[in-house]
Amino acid sequence: MGAEPRDRPPYLWPRIRRDFVAAETHITCGLCYQCRTGQANVCRNVQILGVDRDGAFAEYIAIPETVAWKTGKEIDHTVASIQEPFGNAVHATFAGDITNQTVAVFGCGPIGLWAVGLCRISGSGAIFAIEPNHKRLDIATTMGANYVYNPRDIDPVQQVLAITGGLGVDVVLEMSGNAQAIRQSFKVLRNGGRVSLLGIPSRAVELDLANDIIFKGATVLGISGRRIFDTWYRTRRILEAGQLDLKQVITHTLPFDHLHEAMEIMKTGDCGKIVMKM
Amino acid sequence: MGAEPRDRPPYLWPRIRRDFVAAETHITCGLCYQCRTGQANVCRNVQILGVDRDGAFAEYIAIPETVAWKTGKEIDHTVASIQEPFGNAVHATFAGDITNQTVAVFGCGPIGLWAVGLCRISGSGAIFAIEPNHKRLDIATTMGANYVYNPRDIDPVQQVLAITGGLGVDVVLEMSGNAQAIRQSFKVLRNGGRVSLLGIPSRAVELDLANDIIFKGATVLGISGRRIFDTWYRTRRILEAGQLDLKQVITHTLPFDHLHEAMEIMKTGDCGKIVMKM
Amino acid sequence: MGAEPRDRPPYLWPRIRRDFVAAETHITCGLCYQCRTGQANVCRNVQILGVDRDGAFAEYIAIPETVAWKTGKEIDHTVASIQEPFGNAVHATFAGDITNQTVAVFGCGPIGLWAVGLCRISGSGAIFAIEPNHKRLDIATTMGANYVYNPRDIDPVQQVLAITGGLGVDVVLEMSGNAQAIRQSFKVLRNGGRVSLLGIPSRAVELDLANDIIFKGATVLGISGRRIFDTWYRTRRILEAGQLDLKQVITHTLPFDHLHEAMEIMKTGDCGKIVMKM
Amino acid sequence: MGAEPRDRPPYLWPRIRRDFVAAETHITCGLCYQCRTGQANVCRNVQILGVDRDGAFAEYIAIPETVAWKTGKEIDHTVASIQEPFGNAVHATFAGDITNQTVAVFGCGPIGLWAVGLCRISGSGAIFAIEPNHKRLDIATTMGANYVYNPRDIDPVQQVLAITGGLGVDVVLEMSGNAQAIRQSFKVLRNGGRVSLLGIPSRAVELDLANDIIFKGATVLGISGRRIFDTWYRTRRILEAGQLDLKQVITHTLPFDHLHEAMEIMKTGDCGKIVMKM
Repeated sequence: MGAEPRDRPPYLWPRIRRDFVAAETHITCGLCYQCRTGQANVCRNVQILGVDRDGAFAEYIAIPETVAWKTGKEIDHTVASIQEPFGNAVHATFAGDITNQTVAVFGCGPIGLWAVGLCRISGSGAIFAIEPNHKRLDIATTMGANYVYNPRDIDPVQQVLAITGGLGVDVVLEMSGNAQAIRQSFKVLRNGGRVSLLGIPSRAVELDLANDIIFKGATVLGISGRRIFDTWYRTRRILEAGQLDLKQVITHTLPFDHLHEAMEIMKTGDCGKIVMKM
Repeated sequence: MGAEPRDRPPYLWPRIRRDFVAAETHITCGLCYQCRTGQANVCRNVQILGVDRDGAFAEYIAIPETVAWKTGKEIDHTVASIQEPFGNAVHATFAGDITNQTVAVFGCGPIGLWAVGLCRISGSGAIFAIEPNHKRLDIATTMGANYVYNPRDIDPVQQVLAITGGLGVDVVLEMSGNAQAIRQSFKVLRNGGRVSLLGIPSRAVELDLANDIIFKGATVLGISGRRIFDTWYRTRRILEAGQLDLKQVITHTLPFDHLHEAMEIMKTGDCGKIVMKM
Repeated sequence: MGAEPRDRPPYLWPRIRRDFVAAETHITCGLCYQCRTGQANVCRNVQILGVDRDGAFAEYIAIPETVAWKTGKEIDHTVASIQEPFGNAVHATFAGDITNQTVAVFGCGPIGLWAVGLCRISGSGAIFAIEPNHKRLDIATTMGANYVYNPRDIDPVQQVLAITGGLGVDVVLEMSGNAQAIRQSFKVLRNGGRVSLLGIPSRAVELDLANDIIFKGATVLGISGRRIFDTWYRTRRILEAGQLDLKQVITHTLPFDHLHEAMEIMKTGDCGKIVMKM
Repeated sequence: MGAEPRDRPPYLWPRIRRDFVAAETHITCGLCYQCRTGQANVCRNVQILGVDRDGAFAEYIAIPETVAWKTGKEIDHTVASIQEPFGNAVHATFAGDITNQTVAVFGCGPIGLWAVGLCRISGSGAIFAIEPNHKRLDIATTMGANYVYNPRDIDPVQQVLAITGGLGVDVVLEMSGNAQAIRQSFKVLRNGGRVSLLGIPSRAVELDLANDIIFKGATVLGISGRRIFDTWYRTRRILEAGQLDLKQVITHTLPFDHLHEAMEIMKTGDCGKIVMKM
């Protein structure tokens, strides 16, 4: 705990090391205004593994040492491999105060499910999970959601407002990217509340800015990547302390050559995290 | 400076007092979660003078003592009467760090113009003012804008990006409520920057949330009313120190019975603040 | 949850109500700069129950309605009566980010013990409790401390530094008021860390400001009272959700006329909270 | 403005460059917790030029590229050479909100004097400067202080409290390191105010923590070095915009071989910044 992965100056490093590492997939430039003022997660010149350069589907990849995150050997390999998307949940959840706050999580894919768990271990008040897939709602309950709603069956806005006495929730974590869910996010938010937007909508979204953001005095935070390396330190601490079992979110484990099958399952939405074994 | 308007307990107050006061137009309930946790400006049960109850066009109005803001007799009456809309500019501008920050102000009605002046006296870096009325752009220059753009003549997004070396500005103050201006606000914003939304759009606005807020790691703040009474104390200090001449924004002074004429001028947009004299 | 205790305007209130309430013991003036800008806990004209006016040892007391905190009838009366000192722990612990943070709590009287529990339910990393009374250290373990040290037996500074790999802890909650403990607080703090000072030293304390605060880039927060009413809302949520059992800290329950005996026990330090029954 | 010093990836850099640079004197390790979470100014493994390795009195020094801050050729060389101590003032002054805040600056050596100027250009309210040397107080007036006090002639605590109506100031910038001044800092601070400690006391200081920090709900910030590189960007913007003339603080310019003489002048305190010319 607190021990640094490499605590000696570079000129003392051995020529060759074999470390067990995870990769931060955002290769940041280190030179732009953002990188030099603690906002490297929105680096102007970022290159993303698997988007701008070879990623995890390549046979071998080389990554700069600066994005290699040494991971303790005691961490299960499966868990180690999903640290990075888990970091998205960590960044979104801890972008503001979450303890004692009531929270609505829209979208319960793996990141949304982990977010539910993070709220639970951080002392949040009531946690609402909203998601159209029943299987995922079940996992949300396991992760600690107090109320789970399927928007195909019931109006989540009405429910959340009823249970909060009309006040709404303090915090919304929007993990779906769905336009309707985004609009509902603002409807369940209390005046003066905070929304973390992480889910990526596929097109422009129409918002009632006047009523949903301005008169409400809302704070909206765009969440991109992970804070470098604040988010990774938090992740390490959570894993080392065993505060959250990331594997609760895994529903399928498949051999790596079943990639196509995995993609098909993901499209159905009938899954949590799918892990591919080498 | 710093002296409290009423420094004795209520039971020592005289029965009748004749004070010179301005009114905070938001009558807040004092009992809701927001009122009791320092966010009274988004009180759940707010009543607004002139909207929910008699306002400044009534012959006489009664207001609760709690919203009467005692104003020094040395403050010019005209200035005293426009403290409240000025407070909107104060709240929006100081909602985050503004010193050393580059700022774009969209919309140069009175509130936008004051915001330009507030940035100027607070040590902001380059200040960009964007507004379709040339008369208002001239006043923006007087208030301290370094660059003024009329979006009818030139693309403000291209201009701001060119001058900031492609980075964009740290802060946007959106004072227009115009849908196109709102979309441009996000285009001129740097990654990790902050937008204060104050202008009220008349209908829903389509936003490219993915590129403009999420990937950008932007912070968006809905600005409603004035912080009670933090904003008013700031206003008092600015006026007492003579840091900003609010009257620079006044373009017309009319007798009160010329109300109709004043409304017509406002519709043309060819004006700053219009003051009605009793 | 979230429902307001009194949701109607005052003129609709019944003349006489019989509510079950706890008292915020700081009677604030409501008129000073601090009261009007969300910092009423450091009101300039505060009167404290039991110090400046009749307190809990009087036969009857009258309190202004503004400091009466309605408490749900489902809350155990014993718990209800200790909400206010518990609020000190809530204020001190949540004065900054505590989730994922390593914490050292100096002084394990009731407030320190509750602070340990609050860190535990809020997802803190390793929690260190330092206290010279073994009985209290046992309760600290029950409340969730990972490491407990008796400074009479062992040097807590050496221990904390060893376990954190020389880094020190992110947060110190100083609840003892003891001069040596205060100095140790800064020695176990990591560079850039935060100290909440709540324990009241009986005389001036010598500090090595250069090494302990300045070069360290430390943040030191003076903690007084409870944030009004942010702290109380948090307390309510914790109690209503059953996140923490405040009674774990109670070691003695005595009839009210055994006051003298209670005082004697407190002096020995061989106790947690002592509750007096009417 | 906003343009990055080096906007191309390293592999495109020429082998040899001749840039005009200033040095951040804190050589940070880049690997510790602090360096990797945006707090490099309190790096655990810092080496300081002139303390831990050759500094500005050596004939030649080599510095890592990471601490070279490219400075525009249009910046006067004298100004460029004093950017780094000026950065201390920038860090201390902007460690919290300063606009509209009343400020007391204790100690008017060069850093204190610049701090006065920074408050002035950032829209602070009344600025009080306290310093035992009359020459420095004169410069403080030039830099924009509203009230200057020589503690040898008058009690600054009484003065500040009288002028602020008993409230005290919102912010103290302690630049002297003098024990009495540090104690006075807390006496002039309003309840809920903020103190930036930058001046280095030569020995331990006795503080009345109970009354001066705890009951007051004060925030105390240890200020070390400069935020890397947030402070430097701010410095650049201030210089490029010509918001502050750093040379107003220079009282002596001497040839470099008059080093001994310069040291003697510094000891008298009868000077601002002394610049040595090569």
